[in-house]
Amino acid sequence: MNNGKFIVVEGLEGAGKTTAIQNVIQTLKAHGISNVETTREPGGTPLAEQMRALVKEGHPDEPLTDMAELLLLYAARIQLVDNVIKPALSRGAFVVGDRHDMSSQAYQGGGRGFDKALMANLRDTVLGDFRPDFTLYMDLDPAIGLSRAKARGELDRIEKMQLDFFHRTRERYLELANADKSIVIIDASQTIEQVSADIKAALEKWLNHAG
Amino acid sequence: MNNGKFIVVEGLEGAGKTTAIQNVIQTLKAHGISNVETTREPGGTPLAEQMRALVKEGHPDEPLTDMAELLLLYAARIQLVDNVIKPALSRGAFVVGDRHDMSSQAYQGGGRGFDKALMANLRDTVLGDFRPDFTLYMDLDPAIGLSRAKARGELDRIEKMQLDFFHRTRERYLELANADKSIVIIDASQTIEQVSADIKAALEKWLNHAG
Ligand SMILES: Nc1ncnc2c1ncn2[C@@H]1O[C@H](COP(=O)(O)OP(=O)(O)OP(=O)(O)O)[C@@H](O)[C@H]1O
Ligand SMILES: Nc1ncnc2c1ncn2[C@@H]1O[C@H](COP(=O)(O)OP(=O)(O)OP(=O)(O)O)[C@@H](O)[C@H]1O
Ligand SMILES: [Mg+2]
Ligand SMILES: [Mg+2]
Repeated sequence: MNNGKFIVVEGLEGAGKTTAIQNVIQTLKAHGISNVETTREPGGTPLAEQMRALVKEGHPDEPLTDMAELLLLYAARIQLVDNVIKPALSRGAFVVGDRHDMSSQAYQGGGRGFDKALMANLRDTVLGDFRPDFTLYMDLDPAIGLSRAKARGELDRIEKMQLDFFHRTRERYLELANADKSIVIIDASQTIEQVSADIKAALEKWLNHAG
Repeated sequence: MNNGKFIVVEGLEGAGKTTAIQNVIQTLKAHGISNVETTREPGGTPLAEQMRALVKEGHPDEPLTDMAELLLLYAARIQLVDNVIKPALSRGAFVVGDRHDMSSQAYQGGGRGFDKALMANLRDTVLGDFRPDFTLYMDLDPAIGLSRAKARGELDRIEKMQLDFFHRTRERYLELANADKSIVIIDASQTIEQVSADIKAALEKWLNHAG
């Protein structure tokens, strides 16, 4: 039933996730895997995209509380997991996700400061034991990532957070990556060519090992 | 700080909640309490009303999962509690709520079948120890309530559920009401006049006792 694999690309804004996903798809193809679907979070289904908009835009007359943000992100995630990711995996597809649960652990846990027990509990309540098979974490100094993101245009509600929020988020990302063998840290401060080579190497290694 | 009181009216669709709230407001006024605010759930703030719309309407191309529904309801609830109810109580107002957490315990716990530990855990995680001071539960056979609601027009995503869903919801409502001294059961199958008299009597008794 669960024949496909779920690969996730994680990292701060502008760290190179979207770019990395192209490398992942190429590497999978070179490995003979062409049944590949991509997703993004929060979002990726009609209802989840509406929840994404609430998180990204908030409302001019009302603050979105940290708790409501957290619950909306999980509501969007379970819509995507149940309606898109699990069905794709059942069909044998490889799913490549632009962000998944690690983003909540890092941004809401590390950045916003929700405690680890609460975060783990909510994840288990909503997702059960559903986890990615392999994760690439694109590690980059937040200031560099934000300047790359800024070059693209208007900043959203999250991107407008102070730098120390992103430093706390990065710290949690690194802590989680170091504690989990299925997560590989990519040094995203390198040239695009070197980053691409590192992604290929890490993914090839995992494919030859897990496949 | 928390000088006001939070009174909630609960019950199935068409049980007479909106009608009951008028009785509550009149009784409070007769008791010399004129600083009264009303709320409704899900909704009652700009962001919470957008979440309400997702729950009530869903999406033609995508099922809203039970878990996402549950999380959206709590996201809407914490927006209302933090941005409206608690500030009003701090100003000394009496807040009269058209539904609150008991609806989730009854509909999502009883109706949808989420287990009690999960429901209690989520409530405590989101709301902490915030609870209503007094609740009127309008008890009515679901078939009667739905026929009253139908007379008003188009049914929404929840109102279109099968009758056994509402029977399970009513059962949980009654179980919760019987286990909690701050919840009074009103027999909503009586005439409007008798219902109104029962509400007045129950509220007066509580005001004289708690006030
Ligand atoms: N290694 C790199 N060196 C310099 N620039 C890069 C590198 N990788 C990506 N970029 C550029 O940085 C910008 C952000 O990259 P990308 O969109 O892949 O990041 P992202 O993590 O997907 O961002 P977001 O979180 O906003 O979606 C793009 O303009 C991209 O071309
Ligand atoms: N005791 C009663 N006997 C007969 N009809 C009643 C009684 N109480 C209310 N009604 C009528 O039933 C309808 C539903 O009542 P009301 O709107 O107060 O219920 P509600 O619980 O607020 O419904 P909803 O859940 O849809 O908001 C209204 O038309 C109302 O006038
Ligand atoms: Mg991107
Ligand atoms: Mg009503």
